[in-house]
Amino acid sequence: MLTLYYYPGSCARASHIALREAGADFDLQLVDFASAEQHAHAYRQINPKGRVPALATPRGIITESPAILAFIAQSYPAAGLAPLDDAFEFARLQAFNNYLCSTVHVAHAHIRRGERWADDEAAIAEMKRKAPQVMHECYSFLEETFSDGPWVMGDSYSIADPYLFTITTWLPLHRIESTDFPKIHDHLQRMLQRPAVQTAIAMEQAD
Amino acid sequence: MLTLYYYPGSCARASHIALREAGADFDLQLVDFASAEQHAHAYRQINPKGRVPALATPRGIITESPAILAFIAQSYPAAGLAPLDDAFEFARLQAFNNYLCSTVHVAHAHIRRGERWADDEAAIAEMKRKAPQVMHECYSFLEETFSDGPWVMGDSYSIADPYLFTITTWLPLHRIESTDFPKIHDHLQRMLQRPAVQTAIAMEQAD
Repeated sequence: MLTLYYYPGSCARASHIALREAGADFDLQLVDFASAEQHAHAYRQINPKGRVPALATPRGIITESPAILAFIAQSYPAAGLAPLDDAFEFARLQAFNNYLCSTVHVAHAHIRRGERWADDEAAIAEMKRKAPQVMHECYSFLEETFSDGPWVMGDSYSIADPYLFTITTWLPLHRIESTDFPKIHDHLQRMLQRPAVQTAIAMEQAD
Repeated sequence: MLTLYYYPGSCARASHIALREAGADFDLQLVDFASAEQHAHAYRQINPKGRVPALATPRGIITESPAILAFIAQSYPAAGLAPLDDAFEFARLQAFNNYLCSTVHVAHAHIRRGERWADDEAAIAEMKRKAPQVMHECYSFLEETFSDGPWVMGDSYSIADPYLFTITTWLPLHRIESTDFPKIHDHLQRMLQRPAVQTAIAMEQAD
């Protein structure tokens, strides 16, 4: 049995959706950011980084969204969530997810987590001010380089889709309209029609 | 034939070392940061992100260090650079590389690339001031959670080792001594003894 540690609407939602798409048997475990549970001793035993997602497996814990997503795709090959037999296509997929993780999510984090990189309040405010501009640049790049669709990898739905979808739902925090990016906006709408996505959102909101 | 686009001492060195460890046939192509070549039109045609590394393959370009490293491991399985037949161990490896990419490299980038996230000079100076503290925290985490060695994954040398090594060589920029972290320091010394590492450094410096 797998257990996904998550907070509603966080990047853990990507792994949550992927687990549902894979047909995996898993438990959901809320890590309550509102009470700083991610920094509490009990959760630090699970993920010393104090972040979500973390996926508990019978063999141990996996962290970091791109690693968890690839693990889900490899563990449930019948779901076809990654081009597992093609190193080049797998690398293209991982490169997309790594860009989301190390550039787009990081750009986003500067609007609310500036204290990671500065102590001075004015500097934190300056990062917060610039974050929407950086996010807009990231999404302009994603729009320009998007596949012919309907999915990130083209015809095949993959673990890149729930990850992109999850981060796209953060655009309103930056007062950015997804309609500025027509292909990304269509992707968002298409994702919202998937039962796995609808169920994941409903289950997270119910907690 | 493969071509690796790199700048000496950058994170592209991880992919460079991995290609040598794999016994791959490849060309090296310098992207001269000193003349801002990474932002020039010609290189943007190769990698629109304006970063290194980029790996040109007969089927197209791959970007993002963890994706390139996994591609090398999958393309040269005889080199044994990743646990390719074990989804859990592969995920542990990818989680390590993703932490380097999205947390440690990002922490490092705040000392010299603060303009990515702020325009105000005082804010950029504040990020620069805090970066060594954040890097020290990252390396404390890496030290505490390091395997029993000798390598990141334990007994087996993998694509995580050149990536960790490359970022460890950046510690002096933060005025951090690798000897503060005994396991990491030993890893650094062990890496410096590998012929692939020695050759990679020599070839980059020769350019």
